[in-house]
Amino acid sequence: MSSSNYQSYLENMQKLADVEYSIAVLSWDKEVNLPSKGAAARSRQVATLSGIAHEIFTDKKFGETLQSLSNNGNDLNDRQKRNIQLTQKDFNRINKFDTAFVMRRSNLISTAFHAWLKACETNDFSIYEKPLADLVDLKIEEAEIVGYKDHPYNALMEEFEPGATVAELDILFKDVRNQLVEFAAKIRSKNEVDNSFLRKNYPKDKQWEFGIHLLKNIGYDFEAGRQDISTHPFTTNFSATDVRVTTRIDENDFGNMTWSCIHEGGHALYEQGLPNADYGLPTGKYVSLGIHESQSRLWENNVGRSLSFWKAHYPKLQKEFPENLSNISLDSFYKGINKIAPNLIRTEADELHYHFHVLIRYEIEKGLIEKTIKVTDLPEVWNAKYKEYLGVEVPNDKKGVLQDIHWSHGSIGYFPTYSLGSFYAAQFFAQAKKEIPGLIEQIEKGDNLQLLQWLRDKIHQHGRIYDANDLCEKVTGEKLNFKYFMDYVNEKYGAIYHL
Amino acid sequence: MSSSNYQSYLENMQKLADVEYSIAVLSWDKEVNLPSKGAAARSRQVATLSGIAHEIFTDKKFGETLQSLSNNGNDLNDRQKRNIQLTQKDFNRINKFDTAFVMRRSNLISTAFHAWLKACETNDFSIYEKPLADLVDLKIEEAEIVGYKDHPYNALMEEFEPGATVAELDILFKDVRNQLVEFAAKIRSKNEVDNSFLRKNYPKDKQWEFGIHLLKNIGYDFEAGRQDISTHPFTTNFSATDVRVTTRIDENDFGNMTWSCIHEGGHALYEQGLPNADYGLPTGKYVSLGIHESQSRLWENNVGRSLSFWKAHYPKLQKEFPENLSNISLDSFYKGINKIAPNLIRTEADELHYHFHVLIRYEIEKGLIEKTIKVTDLPEVWNAKYKEYLGVEVPNDKKGVLQDIHWSHGSIGYFPTYSLGSFYAAQFFAQAKKEIPGLIEQIEKGDNLQLLQWLRDKIHQHGRIYDANDLCEKVTGEKLNFKYFMDYVNEKYGAIYHL
Repeated sequence: MSSSNYQSYLENMQKLADVEYSIAVLSWDKEVNLPSKGAAARSRQVATLSGIAHEIFTDKKFGETLQSLSNNGNDLNDRQKRNIQLTQKDFNRINKFDTAFVMRRSNLISTAFHAWLKACETNDFSIYEKPLADLVDLKIEEAEIVGYKDHPYNALMEEFEPGATVAELDILFKDVRNQLVEFAAKIRSKNEVDNSFLRKNYPKDKQWEFGIHLLKNIGYDFEAGRQDISTHPFTTNFSATDVRVTTRIDENDFGNMTWSCIHEGGHALYEQGLPNADYGLPTGKYVSLGIHESQSRLWENNVGRSLSFWKAHYPKLQKEFPENLSNISLDSFYKGINKIAPNLIRTEADELHYHFHVLIRYEIEKGLIEKTIKVTDLPEVWNAKYKEYLGVEVPNDKKGVLQDIHWSHGSIGYFPTYSLGSFYAAQFFAQAKKEIPGLIEQIEKGDNLQLLQWLRDKIHQHGRIYDANDLCEKVTGEKLNFKYFMDYVNEKYGAIYHL
Repeated sequence: MSSSNYQSYLENMQKLADVEYSIAVLSWDKEVNLPSKGAAARSRQVATLSGIAHEIFTDKKFGETLQSLSNNGNDLNDRQKRNIQLTQKDFNRINKFDTAFVMRRSNLISTAFHAWLKACETNDFSIYEKPLADLVDLKIEEAEIVGYKDHPYNALMEEFEPGATVAELDILFKDVRNQLVEFAAKIRSKNEVDNSFLRKNYPKDKQWEFGIHLLKNIGYDFEAGRQDISTHPFTTNFSATDVRVTTRIDENDFGNMTWSCIHEGGHALYEQGLPNADYGLPTGKYVSLGIHESQSRLWENNVGRSLSFWKAHYPKLQKEFPENLSNISLDSFYKGINKIAPNLIRTEADELHYHFHVLIRYEIEKGLIEKTIKVTDLPEVWNAKYKEYLGVEVPNDKKGVLQDIHWSHGSIGYFPTYSLGSFYAAQFFAQAKKEIPGLIEQIEKGDNLQLLQWLRDKIHQHGRIYDANDLCEKVTGEKLNFKYFMDYVNEKYGAIYHL
């Protein structure tokens, strides 16, 4: 009985995945290939497929099958039970919204997005104020509809980081405020590091080749993916055996391509390592955005900005770009690529100040949802926090509160996952160093494959069998602990800045 | 009443188009980008979307709307009536097949396709014999299910060339046999033309640039399309404002890229010229494969292999490839690119012998459907006809009856559209010369845009308002007439070969 029901559940989930991955192909193509006049038709094609995906998932008969498996699924194995439990949760959530609410949300997002575009263009927050305020009200309503324990923000984070709570994040971000702000300030008082060599001319083709070399080196499988160029780098996948990355190349900024390439590569290694046999099922998917980000950050920062990594790759890099780098020692290169300086834009931040940007978003989002911060005061609140935490003056809203697309898409509760990613990464990497004998020596020799295998074994292959917290405990023996991130930055930047 | 029904009809057709164009994006991506390990997931994604498209089109409620519009649509305008009439026809055809038949067909095609691949690999027709025989039996059954007047082959051609009949094609191919065979034989008796310069080394990048130059020159809109590389060149579209072409580049065969580029460009100009406002409707689509092919052939041959065209482009070509072409006069180049010689492979044939390949297919297909030819005798029949019409010995089945994928896909009745394309092209081009003052002089100056505008006015903008025969009559004042093709080749090759 359960077995034929589970089969029917499986087929519907795989059909849903086929449609959702088709949308992903259309969206990838939009960013990578679309001729300008093709945009209108592409929008309606994506909208139609999204409608079909929604119908497949919310199908009444599917709901009954699911319910029956939830109630009478004792003969299912653990993996099957986990799938039913997670799908039932998603099904319940989506069915709490009636059509009127979904349409209202969709319209508000569309309005807010276009207002945001215009506000950015004209550097005028007031255009965006009303639509954003409406959207915030709707997100508060959404939290009430979904329901939550303790704090409405928990309901919103659930979409991106299942299980994350304000209670835990408050502790984490208090640590950021108490420990990282002081640490960064100490570094800022030191002499400036010179990284002007990164801004010399690095020809496109050679950068591209070097990026491909790095992707191959960290173990990205080009038979199960490809790299292309897009305005904003991203990773997408249409199965675990077709995982694509994009990068961008600025001829006058070598760092732009290099670390976005390793970052997206890290995301892609995770997707390529997920269990392909569970195509379309929760157990075939990633745990959460925070865990996803941990994989990109681990490769980008813990590996890709380490001295060991560049011991392996710097000789090649110098050979490729002798006019820029022949006079720069490995040590100067390493310091340059780890330059710490406060700045205005999150996506351009160093790996310490990055978390102040997220901290500020977290404080503001919580305030908006608690109604202790009003949208109309956002620019003022924003600028004051940047002054307080980063010591910078925000010259205009475009470089301030208007940066980043997320809110205009209704994504509130997303930003914390960026910091969670780095903190998980530090904790995972510390564990990897304990468990893999000679890991650093391997990285120094350009061999990253044992590290990749360790991540595959400990994290990737499990798909979404465990929640983020449980996974972290299973891999490292304890829950997420900010200490590992501070240990990492203390050791690294203590050495660089002779603290 | 009709108006709200028509609106509902329209929405379903546009939804269907969204799904079908999504399939086209997935298929384009498969040919252009797909990493090897992504193939399995891509197949199931395409299959799922195809199933959804089928459901949308065969939906019972949609059928009732259609029927009601067919019966009581007197208040519809002519364009709307045409759409209903054509959609009703497709709807009736598809509903004649029950699920069992559709599944049987799908399985037979899959079996035949894989057998064909294997037969090609091992050069062993016997592997393919049984599956192909089964498929032929099924196509005979299909013709009976669909129904036809006069000849079962008419029912099969209807899928590709609506309105085409054996009665008309018999006359046309008799003309081919009587006039073209003799004409080609006369040319074969003349001295051989030297075109070895086409086989020198032409670097890839420069060929690519020259192909782009040609596409722009004939009026292809790169804001509504793009060119990529694929194994087999093709044109596809996801709306009239996203029409993509592919080409292939052989460094040792300049002709391969050049004329496939112009050929696909011709297909693409047609698609870019279709009425985009009729997205998803028959009136927004091409007339038939024969008319589609007329647009590619007109640009490829009537324009792209003419002396006038190369008067405009040869100086640039010589400048790009001086080591290959500086000693080749325009006249020698022109003769070289129009070399006439019988050969074994359809896709490599010159523009005269090409039609013998199609003639042979037509005779064989008709024989198979009439059951006067047996699949088991195919290699023998094939080889005898190649000896008779082209004077060539077929050394093996790979270079004989196994060439071309079409039959293994169940496409019987498709090949004649290739010849129809060339014959329509000659008739259209003769008419264009009559109606556009100084057309040849324009082409000689590299200006093809008045010709394109003429095609837009006379053919493209009408979408599928007219059937092929009616369109031909409307554009040229008479039905398809083989005379125009013979006039064209007589004039052209008479001059080249001093006949």
